[in-house]
Amino acid sequence: MKLATYKDGSRDGQLVVVSRDLSQAHYANGIASRLQQVLDDWGFLSPQLEELYTSLNHGKLRHAFNFDPKQCMAPLPRAGQWLRGSAYLSHLQLLRQARGETGDAGLDLDPLLVQGASDDFRGPCEPGRFASEAMGIDFEAGLAAVTGDVEQGVTPAQALEGVRLLMLCNDWSLRQLQASEQAKGQGALQSRPAVAFSPVAVTPDELGAAWSGGRVDLSLQTMWNGRKVGQCDAGPEMGFHVGQLIAHAAKTRRLRAGCVIGTGPVSNKDASRGYSCIAEKRALETLDGGAPKTAYMKFGDTVRIETKGRDGLSLFGAIDQDVMSLHDEEPVDAAPATTFAADAAE
Amino acid sequence: MKLATYKDGSRDGQLVVVSRDLSQAHYANGIASRLQQVLDDWGFLSPQLEELYTSLNHGKLRHAFNFDPKQCMAPLPRAGQWLRGSAYLSHLQLLRQARGETGDAGLDLDPLLVQGASDDFRGPCEPGRFASEAMGIDFEAGLAAVTGDVEQGVTPAQALEGVRLLMLCNDWSLRQLQASEQAKGQGALQSRPAVAFSPVAVTPDELGAAWSGGRVDLSLQTMWNGRKVGQCDAGPEMGFHVGQLIAHAAKTRRLRAGCVIGTGPVSNKDASRGYSCIAEKRALETLDGGAPKTAYMKFGDTVRIETKGRDGLSLFGAIDQDVMSLHDEEPVDAAPATTFAADAAE
Repeated sequence: MKLATYKDGSRDGQLVVVSRDLSQAHYANGIASRLQQVLDDWGFLSPQLEELYTSLNHGKLRHAFNFDPKQCMAPLPRAGQWLRGSAYLSHLQLLRQARGETGDAGLDLDPLLVQGASDDFRGPCEPGRFASEAMGIDFEAGLAAVTGDVEQGVTPAQALEGVRLLMLCNDWSLRQLQASEQAKGQGALQSRPAVAFSPVAVTPDELGAAWSGGRVDLSLQTMWNGRKVGQCDAGPEMGFHVGQLIAHAAKTRRLRAGCVIGTGPVSNKDASRGYSCIAEKRALETLDGGAPKTAYMKFGDTVRIETKGRDGLSLFGAIDQDVMSLHDEEPVDAAPATTFAADAAE
Repeated sequence: MKLATYKDGSRDGQLVVVSRDLSQAHYANGIASRLQQVLDDWGFLSPQLEELYTSLNHGKLRHAFNFDPKQCMAPLPRAGQWLRGSAYLSHLQLLRQARGETGDAGLDLDPLLVQGASDDFRGPCEPGRFASEAMGIDFEAGLAAVTGDVEQGVTPAQALEGVRLLMLCNDWSLRQLQASEQAKGQGALQSRPAVAFSPVAVTPDELGAAWSGGRVDLSLQTMWNGRKVGQCDAGPEMGFHVGQLIAHAAKTRRLRAGCVIGTGPVSNKDASRGYSCIAEKRALETLDGGAPKTAYMKFGDTVRIETKGRDGLSLFGAIDQDVMSLHDEEPVDAAPATTFAADAAE
């Protein structure tokens, strides 16, 4: 099934079920109002949502309405944990080479997984707001998994059973702040503003055979200012699968329902596939000509991230974000959908 | 006021108001059931809780009951963000010296603040459960602040206005896993299991003049296996005050209500004050005699952390945790308090 969270002025929004083709939606109230509730009690609530989803797909719901990604918050607007992986090793290797580092640093032995902030996940069409272009504004297009409860010390295979939902994410990165944070050896904080997610989160069964061994065997398309810059395969070159990432996080403590784990930017060895973050393009340019040529993003730029299923339909909907100055006026949101009010008034 | 969260079998527990002397408590239902709700809507809900608190302190509530820290979850059992500071510079300097690092590394220029996990905050009397003593089990006794909403780019003074609650914390550390994680330059994950918090969280006004300029001018006592090992002053030697820590975190993004920011282990230049984490003791031994003598914690060890106000009374209640093997049976919890059921049945 496919789930989204509609803006309603609250911090957690309103859970909606979205049809497979992303055309229709229906509020899940009566079952659950927030996605975290569903994750907290998955065994009981998810079958009820699945039933609603089936009816929605069959066009049987009188109060279904047109699904509008612009009304979406992140599927899970806040969570207990966000972990940023770097599971595509060619991404790490390329950046290391461009920095002149040698050796493989054991990148394939142990996943790189870093704590991030989960208090303020952003919706797919919310702008990224930054104080200055000089910070080196970059997108990072990747996938993310939402977990159920995961026990301490699980194996990667057991951890895979804890995957509840999959999404796309754009993990904004401020590259010019990154070097000094990395030099401290304590991970990223200021260089990692709020992450944005796709309109819908989907259960792994929606991917069919494309969800295989903890990897999403589909390609992820990234458009920068309307131009396709990446069409990277998310499957075979993922060095650590989602279960390995989760098990790594759970080695010394349990994870509680609603943890979100990102794959990091999808990256392929074949440079003709393009890139999922500008840093990679700049690394290639540095290796080619001694210096990067492509500048980071400017205010007014856009990024669009989308993945199509094997049926050719958009799987998660698209992340579609503008880059804005912190000091600009917030664009006026479209009026909230009125359907909920009508439903609630019944 | 003083707030705690009682176990009720749910993930977020039941919010209770606790009397100033920590002897009595009263459920906050009717006002709010969860602390996160209060943080989400502080302006509206906190005055109602303050009223309840005043009545409780005056012994006017018929359904008040004896407060039992063993019934407590963390005041905020899960949150959107946990940031671990290292605000006491003597702690950082001592550990650096023992590792043979020279220079001051600009420690006083920019706060060290690291993302942690906030999905599973632990109660004050829950055991720490670890797979092996060989991981180098260490406590870290410090203070923590819970924020309201904080805008991107605030000044330290503005950030201080965002402090809603203060608590004690024990930020468990697995020292033998730390070095390899630090070598990756990406911060701690496996070396930082679930953090535990004091029974109650208090509004800063409870500290009176001891809450001054974003510092808690009181001492923090740490007992290891019943022996006092630290009585460290939390005030003057805090190199960055809480507002500076919050502003550092909010430089490139807003913080949403319920972020928890820890000070790191309280540490003084005067070694006769003792220590708030074993790593410091071992660093001193290394500097004295070339090698550490004090071993890390063993299964069966205990740690107790407490701070008394200027009136001599326990301010936050005590963190009182056992170290247990992951594979031991969970100790049988005391039966949940029955008072809530009685209240609810009214």
